[in-house]
Amino acid sequence: MVGQIKRFLVGKPIATEHQHNERLSRITALAVFSSDALSSVAYASEAILSILILGGAAALGLSLPIAAGIAVLLVVVAFSYRQTIRAYPKGGGGYIVARENLGNIYGLIAAGALLIDYVLTVAVSISAGVAAITSLASTWGAPWVKDYAVEIGLVCILFVTLANLRGVKESGVIFAVPTYVFIASILALVSYGIGVDLLFGAQPVVQDLPEVPVSETIGIWLVLRAFAAGCTALTGIEAISDGVPAFKVPESKNAASTLTWMVTILVSMFLGITWLAHAHGAIPNELTHETVLSQIARTIFGNGPIYFVIQSATALILVLAANTAYADFPRLASFLSRDRFLPRQFSSRGDRLVFSNGILALGFFSAMLVVLFQANEIAMLPLYAIGVFISFTLSQSGMVRRHFRIKEEGWRRGAAINTMGAVLTAVVLVVLAVTKFTHGAWVVMVLIPMLVLLFNSINRHYGSVASQLSLEGADLPIPLRRHTSIVLVSGIHRGVLPALQYARSIAPDNVTAVYVNLDADQTAKLQQRWIDWGCDVPLVVLESPYRSLITPLFNYIQEVDSRYTDDVLTVVLPEFVPAHWWEHLLHNQTGILIKTALMFNKGVVVTSVPYHLGR
Amino acid sequence: MVGQIKRFLVGKPIATEHQHNERLSRITALAVFSSDALSSVAYASEAILSILILGGAAALGLSLPIAAGIAVLLVVVAFSYRQTIRAYPKGGGGYIVARENLGNIYGLIAAGALLIDYVLTVAVSISAGVAAITSLASTWGAPWVKDYAVEIGLVCILFVTLANLRGVKESGVIFAVPTYVFIASILALVSYGIGVDLLFGAQPVVQDLPEVPVSETIGIWLVLRAFAAGCTALTGIEAISDGVPAFKVPESKNAASTLTWMVTILVSMFLGITWLAHAHGAIPNELTHETVLSQIARTIFGNGPIYFVIQSATALILVLAANTAYADFPRLASFLSRDRFLPRQFSSRGDRLVFSNGILALGFFSAMLVVLFQANEIAMLPLYAIGVFISFTLSQSGMVRRHFRIKEEGWRRGAAINTMGAVLTAVVLVVLAVTKFTHGAWVVMVLIPMLVLLFNSINRHYGSVASQLSLEGADLPIPLRRHTSIVLVSGIHRGVLPALQYARSIAPDNVTAVYVNLDADQTAKLQQRWIDWGCDVPLVVLESPYRSLITPLFNYIQEVDSRYTDDVLTVVLPEFVPAHWWEHLLHNQTGILIKTALMFNKGVVVTSVPYHLGR
Repeated sequence: MVGQIKRFLVGKPIATEHQHNERLSRITALAVFSSDALSSVAYASEAILSILILGGAAALGLSLPIAAGIAVLLVVVAFSYRQTIRAYPKGGGGYIVARENLGNIYGLIAAGALLIDYVLTVAVSISAGVAAITSLASTWGAPWVKDYAVEIGLVCILFVTLANLRGVKESGVIFAVPTYVFIASILALVSYGIGVDLLFGAQPVVQDLPEVPVSETIGIWLVLRAFAAGCTALTGIEAISDGVPAFKVPESKNAASTLTWMVTILVSMFLGITWLAHAHGAIPNELTHETVLSQIARTIFGNGPIYFVIQSATALILVLAANTAYADFPRLASFLSRDRFLPRQFSSRGDRLVFSNGILALGFFSAMLVVLFQANEIAMLPLYAIGVFISFTLSQSGMVRRHFRIKEEGWRRGAAINTMGAVLTAVVLVVLAVTKFTHGAWVVMVLIPMLVLLFNSINRHYGSVASQLSLEGADLPIPLRRHTSIVLVSGIHRGVLPALQYARSIAPDNVTAVYVNLDADQTAKLQQRWIDWGCDVPLVVLESPYRSLITPLFNYIQEVDSRYTDDVLTVVLPEFVPAHWWEHLLHNQTGILIKTALMFNKGVVVTSVPYHLGR
Repeated sequence: MVGQIKRFLVGKPIATEHQHNERLSRITALAVFSSDALSSVAYASEAILSILILGGAAALGLSLPIAAGIAVLLVVVAFSYRQTIRAYPKGGGGYIVARENLGNIYGLIAAGALLIDYVLTVAVSISAGVAAITSLASTWGAPWVKDYAVEIGLVCILFVTLANLRGVKESGVIFAVPTYVFIASILALVSYGIGVDLLFGAQPVVQDLPEVPVSETIGIWLVLRAFAAGCTALTGIEAISDGVPAFKVPESKNAASTLTWMVTILVSMFLGITWLAHAHGAIPNELTHETVLSQIARTIFGNGPIYFVIQSATALILVLAANTAYADFPRLASFLSRDRFLPRQFSSRGDRLVFSNGILALGFFSAMLVVLFQANEIAMLPLYAIGVFISFTLSQSGMVRRHFRIKEEGWRRGAAINTMGAVLTAVVLVVLAVTKFTHGAWVVMVLIPMLVLLFNSINRHYGSVASQLSLEGADLPIPLRRHTSIVLVSGIHRGVLPALQYARSIAPDNVTAVYVNLDADQTAKLQQRWIDWGCDVPLVVLESPYRSLITPLFNYIQEVDSRYTDDVLTVVLPEFVPAHWWEHLLHNQTGILIKTALMFNKGVVVTSVPYHLGR
């Protein structure tokens, strides 16, 4: 039954031979790899404004220079990543580049940071997508929809998780249509909006605004905090460098030019939206939870169909952005698992050829975040971006080291670009860490070293197991000479017959039936019935003053086991197998308990001999 | 380690021989058995007022006649239960009386109703106890304490659960002191309060009151609803009849007179508090969540030490009331389990001689209720009392039937009393069901038949198992002639050596090693290494196009198993036993999966042969 439900939800298994690697054109690749980066314009401008508003209305104008600074940072990081793309045509994620050039520990730091960030990507993107939908609903007279934001977010995560367990083809229309509709509609909004504003002046956004008290003075601290908040616009920019092998030949060249296109589009949209927000006086609204993008869109285009298209395309591209994390997280986890830093389960492909365990883990943790933060993406942002910038810095530093090591043609220019990238992202990382520390970033900064410790201890364990399992010096197995068997009986009934039979066939001369005395009357009856029954297997009764089954059994087994040194002792447990799975709950779970307790006993094998109930 | 934590929390095991039955004097018995009934005065008057307030301030005066009606009901039910006490000196709970006199099905209905009610007793009492504490805190300038009501409630449930797992002695000071302090302080409050009020007039309660809109018209419906709400005062009145054997001889006589005393005290306190609430204008306050009892107490005695004593004694007796459900629920569950209507686990006594599983189940479900209702006892009341009244009606009807059957001396008088009790509680039950139906009582009325169905299907299952297990016609076990063994290998390493050795010792000529091909390269390497290694056990490679371990193995086992009819097939799984328990997570859980999948295969025995890792 469990199997049928799984088949229905996840689909039929796919054979290993059907694994394939499709190559993407630049047009499709832009759609596949850029949804995470481009979708961040849905919240990055709002994030800046949500900090500036703490300094009062006068501070809002600072959003323009701050956005310009972030745009410069975007261009520098993009140039820096073009180097990585050229150097790693087989894909150069932060973990691989940092581990290869800086050593294990830096690779693991990058990996831990990225895993956390992928979880946040899903939670933030889904929450922002839900905000786009609830803003649309509020504008269209259904403000109650926002009360179900958490539920809608969880359904979206469930949907994306199931889709990925089935296996999503990373190609074609599914990605291209919403991405290009989003790009087109946002660019239309920006160009039409700016044009109209310049010609006729900007109309202010009409909305009920809660009174937000001024809690911060305008100064360098406020600017840095707002800058840090806006840096979430950079998340996802590294996606193309991870996926170089998916491009058509020449891979590196196509990937590099796609990256340039992506950043150009991203910068235009981000600056345009920030400009429009300022011109129309759009600001984060804690009362209606309407997004800044929705405020701008409905002010410029009215509540009609164009507004609907913008909001739906925003919601869709945000779901796609979450979806990219579903490719990245399981892949990174499988790399870590392959290198023995995570449990093996993360590197085995499921029925549908996907890394099912990584997908499930990502779905679980991101759902927890959505519940914890009540689907409020702006509240999650202080945790976000730290991980990405750690990965940026380590990956660019690794590239610098690589240039100096390999000294390929034109390496000085490459090293200069990567040094600039590394230094700039390192500075921003410090800014992020300092300004966001008390707002939640400390959680991430505690989690990353804990993850690195976990990775290392898992690695040590696997290493220790491998050395212990080496066959060096081991003899070929020879059969044991003596077999002793103990059958644990709970009464005299058909269920013990197969167990006694099995025990006598593996240890013909050496079988004892054992019964634990929990009730003196019942025990006396059983002993008499055993004699009447005429079974020639001797029955041993163990006393148990504290009504425990395990302790007396344990002591008896040790006594029997110590009689001979060259034997093996098999403890046989009669086990009922009911006709229906739920009936298992109705039979004492002592079998499982006994097995668990005896597992750590060397030289003892525990065997359940089933008795199948017919109905 | 798990064992050590358990020892610390629950204490050392107690030997069976130490089971004892202490006899209680009437003074102690009143304390032990009456906390549930007496503590209901902490919320019953408030429950009445919380309904009447919906009809506006003019309706509040109706509380006095309604309370008088409930007092009459209390006296009738008490008289009726004196009959039960006389007829069942060994204890006559609703389940036993109804089952014996009306038949299985009525007994099960009473049992289901009571189990639900015991869970509610814990949730309601603990929540009301927390309300007493938070009211005290608010009066003493710490209103923030009430924001942690749920957490405090959960800690209390955890505490009571642990105390009961250790085993609470139902005797002595623990019960007597708080109960008598409570009785004394409430009676003092009532007599002093009424005296002062009559002499000098009553001071109104000073408090901030939220505006409660009038939503109901004053009429018969409102009166019935308020009456139904007040009927929660009757919960717990049946406790003495369950516990007759615990009294000193003559048991029945002592129990009956204790019941009379208890009802006298209960009626005085209940009527007195209702009168004072009306005189001082105390009403349920949704803003401060201060209890009506707290309002009265601080108005009469001021915020000083007497007020403190009343609030603490109230909180304590409510915790004791919850504690009585911890005796009743596990006992009833053990009766049901003994009669095969619940899983056997409920009738086995744990280390400390208590029915641990019943205690854990009660703690779990009541904690869920506290979270679900946010520790608001007034909101839970519509679900409460229905179960008790079902049990009252069935138990009294059973008594009527018994009188007519046995016709003991003076049976006509007894039958008349019980008939009156049965009719009256049946009428009240209908009133409760109708007035509370849409306020949550429907949940209980759906749950009870579901529980009865569950009891019956569990009973049918155990019956069917017993008949299938009968030894009638079964032969004595004879050893099997032929043994085949399959060893599932995951590679060539030390871990498979003990498994091969074991397999060869139970089936010397008939062992096959089996490997499932999940990766063609690895498989080829393994086959070569197997040949180089020189082990004479043949290696069979199974193809698995869908990367499943189970399906190919399953098919192969069926093929091998079908070769002979008089053999037994043992599938041997090499199992790593790591040095630390948490390291289990790092090894593939496929062994468990394979065991589960093969469990339903007749004629196949699955054995894990452990390989112990040293570190």
